[in-house]
Amino acid sequence: MQPHLFTPGPVSIPHEIRQRGAAPLVSHRSEPFFSLLEEISARLKRLLRAKEPPVLFPGSGTGALEALAANLIAPGDRVISFSCGAFGDRFREIAGRRGAEVIPADIPWGRGATPDDVKDALARSPDPAVVLFTHNETSTGAVTPLGECIAALPHDGPLVLVDAVSSLGALPCFPEEWGIDGLASCSQKGLLTPPGIAVAALSPRGWARAGSRPCPSYYFDLSLHRRFLEKERPQNPYTPPVTLLCSLAEALRFLEDFGFGKWFRLKARTAETFETACKAMGLPFFVEDPAFRSPAVTAVKVPGGKGKDMKRALEALGVDAAAGQGKEPSLLRVAHYSPGGWPELSLIAGSIYGAGKMCGLDLRPDFSEAAWNCWTREGE
Amino acid sequence: MQPHLFTPGPVSIPHEIRQRGAAPLVSHRSEPFFSLLEEISARLKRLLRAKEPPVLFPGSGTGALEALAANLIAPGDRVISFSCGAFGDRFREIAGRRGAEVIPADIPWGRGATPDDVKDALARSPDPAVVLFTHNETSTGAVTPLGECIAALPHDGPLVLVDAVSSLGALPCFPEEWGIDGLASCSQKGLLTPPGIAVAALSPRGWARAGSRPCPSYYFDLSLHRRFLEKERPQNPYTPPVTLLCSLAEALRFLEDFGFGKWFRLKARTAETFETACKAMGLPFFVEDPAFRSPAVTAVKVPGGKGKDMKRALEALGVDAAAGQGKEPSLLRVAHYSPGGWPELSLIAGSIYGAGKMCGLDLRPDFSEAAWNCWTREGE
Repeated sequence: MQPHLFTPGPVSIPHEIRQRGAAPLVSHRSEPFFSLLEEISARLKRLLRAKEPPVLFPGSGTGALEALAANLIAPGDRVISFSCGAFGDRFREIAGRRGAEVIPADIPWGRGATPDDVKDALARSPDPAVVLFTHNETSTGAVTPLGECIAALPHDGPLVLVDAVSSLGALPCFPEEWGIDGLASCSQKGLLTPPGIAVAALSPRGWARAGSRPCPSYYFDLSLHRRFLEKERPQNPYTPPVTLLCSLAEALRFLEDFGFGKWFRLKARTAETFETACKAMGLPFFVEDPAFRSPAVTAVKVPGGKGKDMKRALEALGVDAAAGQGKEPSLLRVAHYSPGGWPELSLIAGSIYGAGKMCGLDLRPDFSEAAWNCWTREGE
Repeated sequence: MQPHLFTPGPVSIPHEIRQRGAAPLVSHRSEPFFSLLEEISARLKRLLRAKEPPVLFPGSGTGALEALAANLIAPGDRVISFSCGAFGDRFREIAGRRGAEVIPADIPWGRGATPDDVKDALARSPDPAVVLFTHNETSTGAVTPLGECIAALPHDGPLVLVDAVSSLGALPCFPEEWGIDGLASCSQKGLLTPPGIAVAALSPRGWARAGSRPCPSYYFDLSLHRRFLEKERPQNPYTPPVTLLCSLAEALRFLEDFGFGKWFRLKARTAETFETACKAMGLPFFVEDPAFRSPAVTAVKVPGGKGKDMKRALEALGVDAAAGQGKEPSLLRVAHYSPGGWPELSLIAGSIYGAGKMCGLDLRPDFSEAAWNCWTREGE
């Protein structure tokens, strides 16, 4: 039996999008592929409200982070790394391997970074070359208000690199409006596509920096990718994941036809409804301040540190969710990327209730009414 | 209309294999995925006649080459780079970006490297730290007799890194038997899977070298990948291309059920039959010596330098083949990775005949009998 998938990536993907990737192969040096890439670029530009299309290449989100480091960080660069979870720590490690002088700015796990955190870090370490942010911290379910944090940086200050791996497509993310110089993401979360496509978007300042010095990697050389993207017909310097790109085109069609803005509101409402159900059951949240709670992934604190037990109980019921990552054994993480709706919300809330019973937790059973009221509060 | 695909990657893939990748998603931290990876590893070990499974990660063949460079070459290492085409040159560039002192050993385009080439290069530059070979040079259709070339190196001499991007799965390639320390390949050619999976296989000596110094890349850190592969249940340090791995498992089942050895012989017979048809038409080969001609891709020299014209004429007929790469405008390259058989051989030979007519070439029409005789010469 195929389990119901609520993990924060890869996410459950509509049949039509998966099926598109099963079409017969085309060459990546042929007109059908060029048109496909052109369509994807146009739709991604509208999603990002950007003038220039992002670079797409075979990789995971981690690969996109590496590409930012390879092109926009030089050995010895002073890099302030804001981290509020396992993925912020990973971005930091990637910058460190690039030879950066990493200055850690640790935000307590369970919230995102704030403009005050930015000001504090700059007061301690003025004039960094680069700052690193994580937009949506998958390991804790915390969002960083990126626009506000970047506004707290000096104008024309450090390059701003952002891990948008688990935010792009699921919550508003507008790199050009917010002043992001390098954005990294991937296919398998908010973009509703199987894993295997890395996404990197640079600002004009980012491109200038990337072009001003040699890239230590051929594979991740974004300027090389850009030259191929700007050929008469857009393409890639080496073989792209053709079938996954077919799925991505279909997913972007689905999201744009739905309406990007309307989709973001649906994700927020889905997360709120799920939170309402959990709260009614008596389950607390790892991210205590609702302002930082992610519309993409909710981390519930399971009483008695039983995160892994809950995950296993859910598995026995046929549901895949994620336990905590690293130092947080009490967490159960549930993602909201997939289309879903009230039936799916009922499925996951009811399954958590049942799994809680299996783990000996005393959860309140009357969660459905509060959840239904939240779900139907808005008119959409 | 879907064109008939004869390009050297991505290659035409049987429906069942593509369809497998359209199954509902599973989490990469769940039992169904661990079992899938275990099955793939076991089959790849039998294909490579290897004791240890290769590392698989999201990437193209170029990404696999980068992984070898990141883990097995250190800045300043003296690296003899044998190259007989565009992909040998790319491997060289990747080593150069890693900071290697690259010593080019240029083999004339149109043949592979030989043990004499190896001896000559070593006489000029004794005691290199690393040597680079390309097993099957996709840009020219030339094979290097790897086993013999490696045997010409001193015992316990330089680390041997091999680009097997377009050979693995289509021709015998046995890294442990031949003494390869790092082998790079990918999913979309001989492994009959859509593009997006990179393959890297290391020898015990390769693993020791990789583990003896820090890797400059998190993404390409093969020792990190190996630690995750050796967990109680095998997995990846970051999100793998789950759906492509489903297809890869299906493709390896298909190849192993067919019989790896029998499959290699079929590829060789397919290439020979195609060569026989081309020769009967009056088309010469770029690789003059049959001993170096690839069973995976044949490069035909189109009279009058009309490689691109032929490619366009084939496109107009509904067939995708590849023109020359870089400095060889006369080439037309046709790949033999896909299952195919006599009907497909008739399709491509007849299409080349027609496209030649469209380009004003004087090709002889009686190619079918010679080709049929070649195809039916063996009893399989």
